Amino acid sequence: MTEEKTVSSDRVYEGRVLNLRVDTVQLDESKTTRREIVEHRGAVALVPMDADGSVLLVRQFRKAVERVMLEIPAGTLEIGEDPLQCAQRELEEETGYRAANIRQIGGFYPSPGYCTEYIHIFLATGLTPSPRRGDDDEDIEVEVVPFFKALEMIDRGEICDGKSIIGLLTLKSHVA
Amino acid sequence: MTEEKTVSSDRVYEGRVLNLRVDTVQLDESKTTRREIVEHRGAVALVPMDADGSVLLVRQFRKAVERVMLEIPAGTLEIGEDPLQCAQRELEEETGYRAANIRQIGGFYPSPGYCTEYIHIFLATGLTPSPRRGDDDEDIEVEVVPFFKALEMIDRGEICDGKSIIGLLTLKSHVA
Repeated sequence: MTEEKTVSSDRVYEGRVLNLRVDTVQLDESKTTRREIVEHRGAVALVPMDADGSVLLVRQFRKAVERVMLEIPAGTLEIGEDPLQCAQRELEEETGYRAANIRQIGGFYPSPGYCTEYIHIFLATGLTPSPRRGDDDEDIEVEVVPFFKALEMIDRGEICDGKSIIGLLTLKSHVA
Repeated sequence: MTEEKTVSSDRVYEGRVLNLRVDTVQLDESKTTRREIVEHRGAVALVPMDADGSVLLVRQFRKAVERVMLEIPAGTLEIGEDPLQCAQRELEEETGYRAANIRQIGGFYPSPGYCTEYIHIFLATGLTPSPRRGDDDEDIEVEVVPFFKALEMIDRGEICDGKSIIGLLTLKSHVA
């Protein structure tokens, strides 16, 4: 298992949510190849569960896939931001609730083949309403769904977002 | 829930695995914003399970995250390629096995917030050795892991790749 040493690196784009660079890497003594790498600051996603055992999901249009998606709340880390604080902030911004208890239950790389992003996953309980503070360019609807129904929606492909599937199935294996 | 109509679109980069474009989209009558979108052809990932109930995992260095990852076999779709044929091809290239039975058990968007990629997930059984044909710039080791151990490795964070977690947990819920 060889590490791929960077021979040269070309920053192609610097943006708001992501950067793109192309690395030339050494495969062995005689061979190099190019790796296209999306640089991403990392993100949090959280499963907010209320006292009735329902989860708060968010419905929003996603331009990249040109469709409305039902997901668990999530958001990109600000530079230097603590993932736990980011989770609390995103919960409030996207659902209008605060959580008395919030703890990490997992984490994963969504696309390690070409993207640096790591997503921290949290469980949020003890939910209480807070003054809702939406993000300016997000149009989000909250949907309260019994946990077992959310799991059925995964089976039927109605929830088909990676972090949401992982968050809900991780919680299921903690509960089981 | 408003769709975001494209006002203009700027192709920033065209590459081997991905392209990058920046869309300006209409949010409401008076407001626009920019969406950074990674264009990806889509991919397949598969859980190859042998007659003993073990799964074949692959270990490889991933430049984007600068670490060795243990994952289920996977690969990017060629243009116009049938996902089922791609799964058979990637299984053979990455593990040196062919599958008598291969069927889709799920699918998901790894990063719908900024990437077009959809990953089709398959279960492969009836495995028989085939002449191994590795990809030129991939250095991959195969690891045979009992299924229940692979699930424990998810719990411990040793398997932390999104498609692998989803593939294995989807199979678990089919088996349960």
